[in-house]
Amino acid sequence: MRRPDLSLLAASLLLACSAAATDAPTVIPAQAVKIAGQLRDRAMHDDTAYRIVEGLTTEIGPRLAGGPNDQRARDWVMAKMKALGFDKVYTEPVSFPLWERRSESGAIVAPFPQKLVLTALGYSPATPKGGLTAQVVAFPTLDALKAADPASIKGRIVYVGARMTRQKDGRDYAIGSSVRTQGPVIAQSKGAAGFLLRSAGTDPHSRAPHTGVTGFTDPAKAIPAAALAGPDADQLERVLAHGRPVQVKLDLDCGITGQYTGANVIGEITGRRYPEQIVDIGGHLDSWDPGTGAIDDGAGVAIAMAAARLIHELPQRPDRTIRVIAFANEEMGLFGGRAYADRHGAEVARHQLGTESDFGADRIWRMSASVKPEARGAIGQIARVLAPIGVAYDAKAPGGGGSDLSQMHAKGMAALSLTQDGTYYFDWHHTSEDTLDKIDPQDLAQNVAVYAAYAYMAAQANGDFGSAPGAFPGEHRE
Amino acid sequence: MRRPDLSLLAASLLLACSAAATDAPTVIPAQAVKIAGQLRDRAMHDDTAYRIVEGLTTEIGPRLAGGPNDQRARDWVMAKMKALGFDKVYTEPVSFPLWERRSESGAIVAPFPQKLVLTALGYSPATPKGGLTAQVVAFPTLDALKAADPASIKGRIVYVGARMTRQKDGRDYAIGSSVRTQGPVIAQSKGAAGFLLRSAGTDPHSRAPHTGVTGFTDPAKAIPAAALAGPDADQLERVLAHGRPVQVKLDLDCGITGQYTGANVIGEITGRRYPEQIVDIGGHLDSWDPGTGAIDDGAGVAIAMAAARLIHELPQRPDRTIRVIAFANEEMGLFGGRAYADRHGAEVARHQLGTESDFGADRIWRMSASVKPEARGAIGQIARVLAPIGVAYDAKAPGGGGSDLSQMHAKGMAALSLTQDGTYYFDWHHTSEDTLDKIDPQDLAQNVAVYAAYAYMAAQANGDFGSAPGAFPGEHRE
Repeated sequence: MRRPDLSLLAASLLLACSAAATDAPTVIPAQAVKIAGQLRDRAMHDDTAYRIVEGLTTEIGPRLAGGPNDQRARDWVMAKMKALGFDKVYTEPVSFPLWERRSESGAIVAPFPQKLVLTALGYSPATPKGGLTAQVVAFPTLDALKAADPASIKGRIVYVGARMTRQKDGRDYAIGSSVRTQGPVIAQSKGAAGFLLRSAGTDPHSRAPHTGVTGFTDPAKAIPAAALAGPDADQLERVLAHGRPVQVKLDLDCGITGQYTGANVIGEITGRRYPEQIVDIGGHLDSWDPGTGAIDDGAGVAIAMAAARLIHELPQRPDRTIRVIAFANEEMGLFGGRAYADRHGAEVARHQLGTESDFGADRIWRMSASVKPEARGAIGQIARVLAPIGVAYDAKAPGGGGSDLSQMHAKGMAALSLTQDGTYYFDWHHTSEDTLDKIDPQDLAQNVAVYAAYAYMAAQANGDFGSAPGAFPGEHRE
Repeated sequence: MRRPDLSLLAASLLLACSAAATDAPTVIPAQAVKIAGQLRDRAMHDDTAYRIVEGLTTEIGPRLAGGPNDQRARDWVMAKMKALGFDKVYTEPVSFPLWERRSESGAIVAPFPQKLVLTALGYSPATPKGGLTAQVVAFPTLDALKAADPASIKGRIVYVGARMTRQKDGRDYAIGSSVRTQGPVIAQSKGAAGFLLRSAGTDPHSRAPHTGVTGFTDPAKAIPAAALAGPDADQLERVLAHGRPVQVKLDLDCGITGQYTGANVIGEITGRRYPEQIVDIGGHLDSWDPGTGAIDDGAGVAIAMAAARLIHELPQRPDRTIRVIAFANEEMGLFGGRAYADRHGAEVARHQLGTESDFGADRIWRMSASVKPEARGAIGQIARVLAPIGVAYDAKAPGGGGSDLSQMHAKGMAALSLTQDGTYYFDWHHTSEDTLDKIDPQDLAQNVAVYAAYAYMAAQANGDFGSAPGAFPGEHRE
């Protein structure tokens, strides 16, 4: 048995202790708490975020990653950040496979011929010219598909009919997104010709189907995959209930056409005392293409930009830098977040505290944090400023940092979760219904109030929140 | 001057007096009232109507007049009427121009290029190959369009942005339908190249645009016309508000391709004592194509069929014939109703009392009648049977007979209006959202209860309700 290297052991202990009780408590100075309260109150009457998301969705519209609006959207956001007076505005490249949607349709061919409203899923390949027609084999859940004999699936179109219901915390998305990501891969592995799911959404009455990414990683093994609108899933199930073989035709013209290099767009309010230390906020700039990307995630970008602008309007720059990141291509695999973490992960200890807004535009009702124990008091200080606008502090749950910033959190960045009310989010998410009218300006302003107050307090804290390489193992959630 | 023929004069006076106060009051026998109450109560727990509309929308689906499902739908309804045991099932031909929808798309071309979700309107011609691109000129209302200088319109795409709001009686449809029918004609007369309206609907958040018929009567003078979904109308208005010229492209492939002969499908429960005297109930079998025609008007056909079936299940046939009419092509100009009135108008005095269900599947909350004064007491008897299931009797308003049967009413048929709650009807009407899931089986059953009870009482009445040629001048409403 080899004797352990004591210096390495000491280093490990030191790392382990960076989140332990030996540090001095992190405290937010009283003056900063007071100013945060003022920022909060000002934000509640500020329409900057609404004007940003209105402009982005009206002047640019849908922003499919790598699509015709990708560059236009980046230019728009950079120009807006400059117009708002940000101290630094720049981009960092992000590369990803370019997936295009050209056309899509579907139909029941037999026994009762009729159209089905569906949408192709991200990374779905095209069907053969003239479409793919095959018999449908249906499963109520992903587990049923997992358990199925491949002989029952080979050459068929697999349909999975799992349902989601509305929840404030959106927890049913775990059902829908796992069917959408894993279902096509499992179906393909069992020899299926194609894959359909009941849309991963919560409005059973909407004919707007929900797109979203699949888990295909090898294009050579991908099969055509699409989501049916809720009423079309109902219809398919009713037709199947007649007990006769049901033939469905998928006609999808879509697929990966190459590699694309876009960029994360970054704007900063430079810190006065510790410019190299960063409070990270943001959203993702790409959107699915059927809607205009208002709630997913024009709102997130707008919330972060408007929060930074309010801090910028203060007589003095904050102590630390406020960094707003408009991430590239979150939708097809967190590419912007991964690129950011790859580039900045080594300097994670300089990232004070971060979180991204990517759950719509309804009010934030819950906060949780992944921070070192000595920073719990400071998180409590933040919580007390946010309580008057309806944010409850859950001291036991971890903070995930949001979608893209989950990747920096995985590297060790201290992170919050600022949970929006997601009751209706999955009614519209990833559909043509994701448009500006789904945003209530007052609710959006409450989000800005939360982000402005938290970001300012984090920037002014005496002490850190525990960011360090690998500081939060096992707490990482996407 | 020729001396008048006294016998003719006497006959005229007799006809005129058929609706006057000299007749004996029409009375519904106590036994018939009792059975009507039983029919009502039975209907409230009967799912026949729901199973009919489920079958029609699932096995046939959309039923655009003259389209591929026109004949299939007629065959389906005839088979169902026979299966339900109707005494006579037959058709009467209905001819109309055949309008087809092949494809449709639209976009803002400048200054902010993006797709618009729209749907072509009935009788719209196709745009030229490659689409029609023109500058948009916008009007808030139909009156503003009427008042506009043709010089401001010539060569442009006219957009009218009038809005509807939800109303229990659906009265705002007068706004939307007048913009949709008259707007394109007025725009064309002033030299417009195309026409757009904000969808004639009440859900401002839905991306499902509302199709419907235009008022074009001369195909040579028709211009491309389409409806924008609510959020797309908002988007166009926001882009217009920037003050720069807005170019829109319409790409519609649709138009009149010939003449089609379909049919009204008729099923009867033959009267025992007066088989030649008819109580008319029905709905229309055609539907717009984006949805499956569940609320408009599979429900109406199903309500009437289920009501007749309940009467058919009684130990004895009713005194008069119950006639269920599934009308052809209501949507593009009441063709089925006009054909029926042309064919049966001369015998209008034999049509006891009629009304059609064509306002969705929500509960009936109001009844009114156009009948002779001596039949008011009998209408009151009907009202008392319907009151326990939520139907209020408005003794002052006329009864219109519904959409197609308005044409028989115009010929002199006594008619009811049985008004459904239309609060949400125009959220879904004429859109892809008109699907089975919008129907509550309990609400549908309440409609059947109303139709079964009224039709039975009308069939058993001692006396008539005043039907006679020209009996109700000026009360005719469509």
